[in-house]
Amino acid sequence: MAEKRLLLLTTGGTIASEASDSGLVPRESGQSLVQRLEKLPYDIDVKDILQLDSSNIQPEEWQLIATEIYDNMDKYDGIVLSHGTDTMSYTASMLSFMIQNVKVPVVLTGSQVPINVVLSDAPDNLRLAFVAAATCEPAIYLAFDRKVMLGCRTVKVRTINFDAFESVNLPPIATVTSDGLVFNKTISLPKRNKKCQLKTNLETQVSLVKLFPGFDPNLLFAMVDAGCKGIVIEAYGLGGMNYIRRNLVAAIGKLIDQGIPVITSSQCLYERSDLTRYEVGRLALLEGAISAHDMTSESAITKLMWGLGQGMDVHQIARLFETDLVGEVTLE
Amino acid sequence: MAEKRLLLLTTGGTIASEASDSGLVPRESGQSLVQRLEKLPYDIDVKDILQLDSSNIQPEEWQLIATEIYDNMDKYDGIVLSHGTDTMSYTASMLSFMIQNVKVPVVLTGSQVPINVVLSDAPDNLRLAFVAAATCEPAIYLAFDRKVMLGCRTVKVRTINFDAFESVNLPPIATVTSDGLVFNKTISLPKRNKKCQLKTNLETQVSLVKLFPGFDPNLLFAMVDAGCKGIVIEAYGLGGMNYIRRNLVAAIGKLIDQGIPVITSSQCLYERSDLTRYEVGRLALLEGAISAHDMTSESAITKLMWGLGQGMDVHQIARLFETDLVGEVTLE
Repeated sequence: MAEKRLLLLTTGGTIASEASDSGLVPRESGQSLVQRLEKLPYDIDVKDILQLDSSNIQPEEWQLIATEIYDNMDKYDGIVLSHGTDTMSYTASMLSFMIQNVKVPVVLTGSQVPINVVLSDAPDNLRLAFVAAATCEPAIYLAFDRKVMLGCRTVKVRTINFDAFESVNLPPIATVTSDGLVFNKTISLPKRNKKCQLKTNLETQVSLVKLFPGFDPNLLFAMVDAGCKGIVIEAYGLGGMNYIRRNLVAAIGKLIDQGIPVITSSQCLYERSDLTRYEVGRLALLEGAISAHDMTSESAITKLMWGLGQGMDVHQIARLFETDLVGEVTLE
Repeated sequence: MAEKRLLLLTTGGTIASEASDSGLVPRESGQSLVQRLEKLPYDIDVKDILQLDSSNIQPEEWQLIATEIYDNMDKYDGIVLSHGTDTMSYTASMLSFMIQNVKVPVVLTGSQVPINVVLSDAPDNLRLAFVAAATCEPAIYLAFDRKVMLGCRTVKVRTINFDAFESVNLPPIATVTSDGLVFNKTISLPKRNKKCQLKTNLETQVSLVKLFPGFDPNLLFAMVDAGCKGIVIEAYGLGGMNYIRRNLVAAIGKLIDQGIPVITSSQCLYERSDLTRYEVGRLALLEGAISAHDMTSESAITKLMWGLGQGMDVHQIARLFETDLVGEVTLE
């Protein structure tokens, strides 16, 4: 069997960072990253496309990255994307929507510690990403700390330890054991039943608000007046929000009437939101609030930006959130 | 030894909820809650002070609850506060700041399932709360699913299962085992070295923003123009934020210059933020961003509301966030 042809696209991040007077900054090239690894049984090409701390990865970078992946997916058996950890879950989610029905496995990875540090997690993560890119079904993944996770289900939950990412409301696709990369056979990804198309248009004027007691709903209108075209509200628990005194439920109704989609997710990291269970949730549903179900906030905000960017109106956005595009949501 | 005198203050929540045509609504009285338990070895008084889904608990309710606790703490050996789970961590955090140096243990509890359901977690949680109120050192706690946690360290992380709360960046104070309530002896709470005072003044015009790639910093100014007096930004990882194209770092500098305190916490649930490690964090520090260190967002936003309510300016707020008041933060 011929060696698999893999492409490493690099964007900077801690994995490629070096100490400087102003703190860690990304500097190392992709070629240098690969040379630090033991010889891998793959034919690996490298292309450095960005050199950024991932705090600075934004929609314009997503469009660039997605285009690079799309343009290269016919030439390789798999693609690895090295990326800072800070926004990696956002990028993985957005790429999932921008390049649906992707033709090859695309695996994001990075590290908590630069590769030039002796106890770095970078070599392990990079090796795992290459193996995943060579062996997984086509989809957008995030490989980190011995786990291969569906990208649009991941959240960065730790700032220091190596188990930085969790796969939320979906088990990891595969894990590293003494038997190698072991796949969880209970998980079936959505069918890739359409032609792969690159759709990178986005609406960046959106907002992600975390609800807290005392939040003034007028701030939502202030943001809309300032140009905001859609809002994700991280509500409480199953999706509850206040309606006495400060009436957030009524404010959502007004925003929906103005054509501004309002998605409600849960600020609880794990498990689903379900607006039907409590009176406070049902009232919000009656006003037109759109449920994110068990999606991560990272997936909810990127799906909203993407849907608006495709020209969808508030009703089409509501239907979009009742559709599982790439495995990002569990619907009844 | 005489029986301990305990007070149960009730506020509604799932624990006291019943099914209705519009979903679950809180209805059951505190007396009824206590009567459902096996006989407890305490002398328990009950006072129903609110009957709300905790999505509707807001600053005005916090002031009422804090005043009730303060007015009763000389008459009882401990106080249990039943409360909906959705905002329980916010209430526990705020009470910690409003009633510093509290004289008796105050234990918040509730349940994921109403007490009138056979498989409810309510009886276990209520019993644990009463035991904690009778045996813990004076402080504000949250007791849930066999764990007694320092209130200002808790976060609701699950919407369905019974282990709804986690104690973040501080282990639980005590856990239930076959040996009863077992205390973690490695934890020392801050000394209560001052007279207990009730300070309930709050600034409610604040905002809690979760950063995402593409976030327009102008939305912060729009909120300030609409009356917002302070902002907590859940930044990435150790506290990173973008400064190219959309310059959030510069925006924070401008807001600080205008006297608006901007606190940066991490959207990673676990572990600390540390603005000194990466260039992106150091730049924010130079602009005057105030670090939340390893506090929860629940503690950060309530501490900000409380500090502003005490009349503190931006410099005093900065010092407040470098002070551990009640165990809410780990400082070097």
